[in-house]
Amino acid sequence: MSSTQNNWFYEHFDTAGTAFGLRLKQKLEEVQTEYQHIEMWETDSFGYLMTIDGATMLTTRDNFLYHEMMSHPVLFSHANPKRVVIIGGGDCGTLREVLRHPGVEKATQIDIDEMVTRYSEKYFPELCESNDDPRAELLFEDGVQYMRNCADGSVDVIIVDSTDPVGPAEGLFKADFFRDCHRVLAEGGIIVQQSESPLLHSDTIIKDLHANMREAGFTSTQTLPFPQPVYPSGWWSCTMAGKNTQVGEFRETDASDKGFDTRYYSAAIHKGALVLPPFMQAAINR
Amino acid sequence: MSSTQNNWFYEHFDTAGTAFGLRLKQKLEEVQTEYQHIEMWETDSFGYLMTIDGATMLTTRDNFLYHEMMSHPVLFSHANPKRVVIIGGGDCGTLREVLRHPGVEKATQIDIDEMVTRYSEKYFPELCESNDDPRAELLFEDGVQYMRNCADGSVDVIIVDSTDPVGPAEGLFKADFFRDCHRVLAEGGIIVQQSESPLLHSDTIIKDLHANMREAGFTSTQTLPFPQPVYPSGWWSCTMAGKNTQVGEFRETDASDKGFDTRYYSAAIHKGALVLPPFMQAAINR
Repeated sequence: MSSTQNNWFYEHFDTAGTAFGLRLKQKLEEVQTEYQHIEMWETDSFGYLMTIDGATMLTTRDNFLYHEMMSHPVLFSHANPKRVVIIGGGDCGTLREVLRHPGVEKATQIDIDEMVTRYSEKYFPELCESNDDPRAELLFEDGVQYMRNCADGSVDVIIVDSTDPVGPAEGLFKADFFRDCHRVLAEGGIIVQQSESPLLHSDTIIKDLHANMREAGFTSTQTLPFPQPVYPSGWWSCTMAGKNTQVGEFRETDASDKGFDTRYYSAAIHKGALVLPPFMQAAINR
Repeated sequence: MSSTQNNWFYEHFDTAGTAFGLRLKQKLEEVQTEYQHIEMWETDSFGYLMTIDGATMLTTRDNFLYHEMMSHPVLFSHANPKRVVIIGGGDCGTLREVLRHPGVEKATQIDIDEMVTRYSEKYFPELCESNDDPRAELLFEDGVQYMRNCADGSVDVIIVDSTDPVGPAEGLFKADFFRDCHRVLAEGGIIVQQSESPLLHSDTIIKDLHANMREAGFTSTQTLPFPQPVYPSGWWSCTMAGKNTQVGEFRETDASDKGFDTRYYSAAIHKGALVLPPFMQAAINR
């Protein structure tokens, strides 16, 4: 639920009992699509802000944290990722990070709503700078359906860059969806899913996610926390699951010598993110 | 600046252009002391909340993050800490963590405002459970003045558990104060100061803090980021400075075998917190 007042945008996270706000310069535009209500705002200190159905999606200032952590850890955990599928991710920021890896031969982004990408091209052009890369494929259709029709063993890495597990994205957190992903991944393949707040959701969403991934056949799972100021609690996470591969390990030397710049990710940050605080370990393993 | 509306407490971080909110059950009590306006609230999902002059100090639910990271990294970085001074910290949560270390012989807490401690005893009794420890000394006076009068080389670890560097706490971020701290610390002594948000303050407050600490004579400095949902951006930090000792190193085996429970801190979390993301390194070393 969101509201504006005296030039402030507020998002109230009702189940968490917390709220986040950004001071606004102005609302820029909005559209009701077949799927959702998208709004674009200019903020005072965080650049542009996109909200969907009142929920903060991303801002210019801090999206690098999320996009880098949704892409580089999973890609450096896979032995040799060539074929990447991104479910959701319509702002194209994850796609850009994926295509920084020269070994990636094809990256397919499947977002249900084309307007997310059209707004991103207009307000976050830096995130869309790889959309014309010949290795990039942008589809606008249902990701669950796409995965259901995908050939067995045809993908190396699946990145689920989705909204919260309520409404349209709920299915992306279920064992049924993960079973399709497991089938579609080649041997040694890895899936990563954004997995909400370590403080707020360790003993609920994150714990259930591990269980659902293992139920679907994945042999190892690992949650990596990272900061994300505009999401509830300012502390976020992604969870990886491997098909007969250890997602707690990664190509550390390749990550150190990656040959492209990042602002948050580094081999040492990756290593640090593999360490969970005791309260999270206890909640997930309960 | 804070406000309440429809059972929500909001703190607006005006310089950052961000806001944080918590859903309330009720306001419990408030007092205008000689120094500041203290308010106590019961929240919906974060337990009790203390605010000072409208700024969030701590909540029941997430204060463990801050208190553990303000105490255990600095104590395990020191070779053998016996005499500890805490400037500020009137809620006594840092004092409790310090006294978990059996080697500490004396811990003196100096907060200017006794009412902070009186409210904490009432609403956060778990944080005050070590106030009667014979090693604990609680003073209510000015911390800057206390440090000025302290004998040379009489302290091993100084923890500056202060409010933001505006108003009463501004002096606690300056080279003059750090010069006194440097003089008061014994050889190998370490000071740690809470140092605001990595996202919002790396190229301002944190960068200046390193410069001021080095100007005061400290030979090594190190910022450690950690999550803290109720503070601006949800991402916080502390900065350590060593008197002829390396604060980037710590007694890892002792930290692993510490013999008391923590919810966020561990030897591995400590190691991970010593790694700064590239954008912070660039900002601090600029």
